[in-house]
Amino acid sequence: MFFIGERINGMFKDVAEAIKKKDSAFIRQLVERQIRHGAEALDVNVGPSTENPEEAMAWLVKTISEVSDVPLAIDTTKKEVMEIGLSLSRSRPIINSVNANDDRLGFLFSLAKKYDASMIALTMDKSGIPKDTEGRLELAMKIIAFAVEEGFDINRLYIDPVILPVNVAQSQIKEVLRTIKESKMLSDPPPKTILGLSNVSQGSDIKTRALINRTFLAMAIGAGLDAAILDVTDNELMNTAITAELLMERQLYCDSYLSAYKKR
Amino acid sequence: MFFIGERINGMFKDVAEAIKKKDSAFIRQLVERQIRHGAEALDVNVGPSTENPEEAMAWLVKTISEVSDVPLAIDTTKKEVMEIGLSLSRSRPIINSVNANDDRLGFLFSLAKKYDASMIALTMDKSGIPKDTEGRLELAMKIIAFAVEEGFDINRLYIDPVILPVNVAQSQIKEVLRTIKESKMLSDPPPKTILGLSNVSQGSDIKTRALINRTFLAMAIGAGLDAAILDVTDNELMNTAITAELLMERQLYCDSYLSAYKKR
Repeated sequence: MFFIGERINGMFKDVAEAIKKKDSAFIRQLVERQIRHGAEALDVNVGPSTENPEEAMAWLVKTISEVSDVPLAIDTTKKEVMEIGLSLSRSRPIINSVNANDDRLGFLFSLAKKYDASMIALTMDKSGIPKDTEGRLELAMKIIAFAVEEGFDINRLYIDPVILPVNVAQSQIKEVLRTIKESKMLSDPPPKTILGLSNVSQGSDIKTRALINRTFLAMAIGAGLDAAILDVTDNELMNTAITAELLMERQLYCDSYLSAYKKR
Repeated sequence: MFFIGERINGMFKDVAEAIKKKDSAFIRQLVERQIRHGAEALDVNVGPSTENPEEAMAWLVKTISEVSDVPLAIDTTKKEVMEIGLSLSRSRPIINSVNANDDRLGFLFSLAKKYDASMIALTMDKSGIPKDTEGRLELAMKIIAFAVEEGFDINRLYIDPVILPVNVAQSQIKEVLRTIKESKMLSDPPPKTILGLSNVSQGSDIKTRALINRTFLAMAIGAGLDAAILDVTDNELMNTAITAELLMERQLYCDSYLSAYKKR
């Protein structure tokens, strides 16, 4: 599994506050804490309420770069904000995200080429997120075909079937699991798959959110999931992910497999 | 999910001791505790060390029947012990288990008819447990064909793909998950699927056994598992199972879905 820390996101009040106050110490400790807990990359999102998102993204990426060269997943729908994030990244960055809209495909794959970036691609377009597996796979295929034509390395393409909260779209959870499994048959080499995990429990009772997240993650890894944007500081969640990996034979068994994984 | 309590099994030292001493109070409290924790049926196994297994099975079934008419899964390889358990059951019993050996198929399906029993069928035969999905499915198909010929209701047939401990057969876990999924395509109506869950972590470090059990159960429910023989008194395990059921849309979402499920 490729673990991307979700926490540097202006949707969280403390991060929005830190961006506003230019509190770089707060951001640095979030970076270090996530890496200590196993993050292999960090999502970076300035959030919806920033007045100057380009400046905020530049500040965030520079602040992170002061303490780490961990790869960053630049998470924005704004073209200018995306390019600023990519251009300031110290490591090969990740674009989060393209979708199947023609205008975004062209622009973002050209940015991927320019900055040698990996790509997260949502199975949605102007009409929204298809309700079923077939609709999602159709959009995934459109994106893969575009990527192949652009000469993009499919090993660096992450299909995100877009998990919706269980409390608003319960019937779509099964479709997402099937999409993860069946995406692997769309091309050779197959694309990778990814989820923005916490969304599955968005708005659920606070007492069950962590339980929903880790149960769904185990099911998704069982379906073949390769990567997730998640709360790496949730130890139970990470232990579940590592155990699911073990059961899928992605790590060799030993009695101390949890600490062996964490020491890698 | 159909939850079968695993605890009345002479493999556990305290149960072996209770059988030896005819300690019916101990067995009764195990029955009541499992039912309180959500068991919908109870596995009953006299264990390997009983001197007179027929007498032990008769005593266990009678003792359980004093406090409950919960369905019993009579768990033995011995024909006489099986028939005694079935004949004394107060509710429609479950045969645990038949396999694909010709001599066992004939005898056990005739017992199923005689006692109106459901059937758990292991995907193994004289040559042992096939290493891969295809081998397991082949044996499952042989059992289904036999059941159909006998006029047995396939809705009451539970295919058990036989989970082996992750520390001795790590590569087979994926095969078991695939077998659960693909068993559903063998007939119409499809057979149900079941696992003896705790075996997956047999011999693993005690600190990780519960984590391995619940992670694997979530993955198996994601693959379509219908039933499990498990430790219903492990609350984290049961919460994981109920959450996985929710995510597979087998229970309608509400914020208090855990307690709603338990109140059913």
